[in-house]
Amino acid sequence: MAKFPYKGRIVMIGYGSVGRCTMPLIERHFDMPLSNVTVIDGHDHSDDAARFIEKGVKYIVQPVDEKNYGKLLGQHLKKGDLLINLSVEVDSLALIAWCQKQGVLYIDTCIEPWAGYYDNASIPEEQRTNYYLRHRALEAAKKFPKNGPSALLTHGANPGLITHFIKQGVLDIARMRGLDATKPKTREAWAKLMRDCGVKVIHVAEHDLQITDVPKRPNEFCNTWSIHGFVGEGCQPAELGWGTHEKRLPENAAEHKVGSKAAIYLRQPGCTTEVRSWTPHGGPMIAYLITHGESITTADYFTVTEKGKVTFRPTVHYAYHPCDDAVLSVREFQERGFVLQKDIRPLNEEIVDGIDELGALLMGDFGAYWFGSQLSIHEARRVMGPDYNATSPQIAAPVLAGAMWLIENPNRGVVEPEDIDHDYILDICRPYLGPVVGCFSDWNPLKDRNVLFPEPNLDMSDPWQFENFRVRR
Amino acid sequence: MAKFPYKGRIVMIGYGSVGRCTMPLIERHFDMPLSNVTVIDGHDHSDDAARFIEKGVKYIVQPVDEKNYGKLLGQHLKKGDLLINLSVEVDSLALIAWCQKQGVLYIDTCIEPWAGYYDNASIPEEQRTNYYLRHRALEAAKKFPKNGPSALLTHGANPGLITHFIKQGVLDIARMRGLDATKPKTREAWAKLMRDCGVKVIHVAEHDLQITDVPKRPNEFCNTWSIHGFVGEGCQPAELGWGTHEKRLPENAAEHKVGSKAAIYLRQPGCTTEVRSWTPHGGPMIAYLITHGESITTADYFTVTEKGKVTFRPTVHYAYHPCDDAVLSVREFQERGFVLQKDIRPLNEEIVDGIDELGALLMGDFGAYWFGSQLSIHEARRVMGPDYNATSPQIAAPVLAGAMWLIENPNRGVVEPEDIDHDYILDICRPYLGPVVGCFSDWNPLKDRNVLFPEPNLDMSDPWQFENFRVRR
Ligand SMILES: NC(=O)c1ccc[n+]([C@@H]2O[C@H](COP(=O)([O-])OP(=O)(O)OC[C@H]3O[C@@H](n4cnc5c(N)ncnc54)[C@H](O)[C@@H]3O)[C@@H](O)[C@H]2O)c1
Ligand SMILES: NC(=O)c1ccc[n+]([C@@H]2O[C@H](COP(=O)([O-])OP(=O)(O)OC[C@H]3O[C@@H](n4cnc5c(N)ncnc54)[C@H](O)[C@@H]3O)[C@@H](O)[C@H]2O)c1
Repeated sequence: MAKFPYKGRIVMIGYGSVGRCTMPLIERHFDMPLSNVTVIDGHDHSDDAARFIEKGVKYIVQPVDEKNYGKLLGQHLKKGDLLINLSVEVDSLALIAWCQKQGVLYIDTCIEPWAGYYDNASIPEEQRTNYYLRHRALEAAKKFPKNGPSALLTHGANPGLITHFIKQGVLDIARMRGLDATKPKTREAWAKLMRDCGVKVIHVAEHDLQITDVPKRPNEFCNTWSIHGFVGEGCQPAELGWGTHEKRLPENAAEHKVGSKAAIYLRQPGCTTEVRSWTPHGGPMIAYLITHGESITTADYFTVTEKGKVTFRPTVHYAYHPCDDAVLSVREFQERGFVLQKDIRPLNEEIVDGIDELGALLMGDFGAYWFGSQLSIHEARRVMGPDYNATSPQIAAPVLAGAMWLIENPNRGVVEPEDIDHDYILDICRPYLGPVVGCFSDWNPLKDRNVLFPEPNLDMSDPWQFENFRVRR
Repeated sequence: MAKFPYKGRIVMIGYGSVGRCTMPLIERHFDMPLSNVTVIDGHDHSDDAARFIEKGVKYIVQPVDEKNYGKLLGQHLKKGDLLINLSVEVDSLALIAWCQKQGVLYIDTCIEPWAGYYDNASIPEEQRTNYYLRHRALEAAKKFPKNGPSALLTHGANPGLITHFIKQGVLDIARMRGLDATKPKTREAWAKLMRDCGVKVIHVAEHDLQITDVPKRPNEFCNTWSIHGFVGEGCQPAELGWGTHEKRLPENAAEHKVGSKAAIYLRQPGCTTEVRSWTPHGGPMIAYLITHGESITTADYFTVTEKGKVTFRPTVHYAYHPCDDAVLSVREFQERGFVLQKDIRPLNEEIVDGIDELGALLMGDFGAYWFGSQLSIHEARRVMGPDYNATSPQIAAPVLAGAMWLIENPNRGVVEPEDIDHDYILDICRPYLGPVVGCFSDWNPLKDRNVLFPEPNLDMSDPWQFENFRVRR
């Protein structure tokens, strides 16, 4: 394997579950001395990073905050260098603005605000949405110089990789339906192709089937990736891109006043909002509708506007069945009135089996088509090593691919996953994703309904109405 | 310990999780040769029963059904003998009628119909209720001879033991509130005492905190007691005794046309109906409102009627947080459209820690008071042996106590747990229950609400309204 040449330096903020998986990929793929890499993390994970520190990586224990970030980054980054932000609670926008000024490339996997934002009920609901955080970033970007240093927003698994799965899914459906399946060259053409395919709803359908032999204890939150990250987004309002085929707004939905208005939110936290969805291996599932950046960017990107009127847009949201121990943790978190458990435990070595099944479930006139990754714990360990799980490579590989894209395309200003060629990213990521498959299915949310009792509120005339997906109690 | 003298024979139908725990109690407490005991089970668990079979127990592998039950029982039971029904899907009423005719004592832990009843959507909803099954039994009892052979209905943990916890709880609250706390002698006096205590709502609040080190696999249903039993009752409509303090019926509630009308049901299965509740060790919980006999008998028994008008009745229901693996199993069962998983696994040896916390949570003007058992897996194994869990002794001990009561009171006809002196039962059961404690609490369902988002539908003027307990999605 030819290594990817890179002369610059890299600063990685955050050496958590994503960071620790990204580091070996940098080592493996980049033709550069590891002494050019600096990690900054508020916690001391240097034991975990020891094998990289031995090879030259600098590890700085220092929480990044509103006051110190400029000075701190300035010590390690100059023009042409790369900042990889894999932390939680470090404001993405502040970092991007700094990078624009300094000529530094930037990538993250989530638009994060400073600490104490998502679960702060004193911040207006509307501003606790990802919609708003993205809007704020796009507004700020307008003031950045044209052709400034590239800054790639939200390029992990989802948001990130999932966008490229969606595009591949659209091409697959187009081919099956006998439409012109050559790769569109513009946003408008992509949106029209999706419309012509008959797509109405897109779920980012993830079923984490990893199981462990160390049971979750009372008062413990377990997950296969950031617990703080997951809890943070789970406390945000449930958000979804809102499709043009929907007949009525949910009763507690709120619309936005600014921006493209491609998305709405529900006045309830995502971790208490449940929907029906489907993945090929796991089958039908009850999943959380957790807000995610891709719900908004996808709906926005695949909007068809004719004569100033929006004529097509899919409904898009995350449908996340985290691993079983995380399901139990979420339940307990709710039981505790949304106060995080005393103990948190990222799951790694104790995982004994299972896959993390993550893909785009495209639904509409043709039925349902899922395209995505079915990475097993065993394959993940084969490729990454024994102390990795199946979740982190799905996130780290797109970070690697995104970093490469930035280096090859350094002057594109602020970009989102939709702005990147999906084949470029998929080609780099594939070795880390296990089986990448596309499956048609006859599943729809009206299957196996009204079984024991009549269910009110079902719309039997259109399976793809949002209300049909919801799990009501 | 002086053994309990008994000259008759015993037939036990069902050697599942409850039966296998009841057998050693019979051996330990009854002064009788084990050759007087016959087990009839549709499955061959004779390996598991080997140590009792060696001592004389007869084990017959034979499913009991509508056609063969009379002949089968007649071969092993005559006047004065005892039938212990611990099976599922064997019609209690058919057995009772047979026992009444033959002069045989009878006890069960659940009023069961023949197979294929609870999840049979072609049987009218109303008739799939426990209310109806009990009504049918009481109607039949009217035709049995006066002072006939005693038949004790539903005397396991709950229904069963829980009634005696409720009575003890009422006495404790009365004492704390400075009321006359001498044990009432009539149903009417019990009901008035509960009313005077200010009780409005009673939860049978159970949090099974047992955890295992063998994770639940996909397509597997795990539980600490009968999986068929649990699934059966979870598919029945959610049922609750309906209190006089309630301001409005739930939107999908149905009332009964026959009987005392002490209870209502919701037109949805119990295993998808969630409520907030509380236990002392587990703390606040989200539990399933599963229908149970005690919801109906308690509401009925503690009804005050004045001048032909019902003036007091508590709201009563089960609030069950099964063990974590069962929570995951229930979720998967729903995901499968209420089709039972391929594999079922009763949890025993793989349990590594935890307690089964089962008690009566009495709530009202005084706050909340929980009275019940906190049996740990370790204590259960100390008392019962290494291959028992903490759930089965809570059920088997009241079966033992009920059997003793029947033998000492052989001519009382059909009785329910409320008809028995609670001290008699508690005294026999205590050695098998671990700590039996009473705890006051300031918990109420309005605690920690409206945290992240406003919750509509809360009644802030009365915490004890049913709607306040419900978990809405
Ligand atoms: N797009 C995706 O697919 C995807 C998937 C998973 C996670 N994420 C995002 O990636 C980020 C990291 O996730 P993770 O699972 O690695 O999280 P993690 O919690 O495992 O690790 C985060 C790390 O950041 C460090 N950190 C926290 N605050 C810091 C601060 N102020 N300064 C410096 N370091 C700080 C922590 O000490 C920790 O080591 C999160 O924002 C998460 O939302 C994105
Ligand atoms: N009141 C309570 O607290 C309480 C608690 C748990 C269980 N229960 C009830 O007790 C009963 C037994 O529960 P369990 O956990 O032991 O159940 P289980 O499933 O572990 O065992 C039931 C046994 O009955 C046998 N059986 C089933 N159908 C039969 C038939 N037609 N003829 C003969 N045998 C048959 C099965 O083979 C099995 O061995 C159930 O009705 C359950 O609802 C009551």
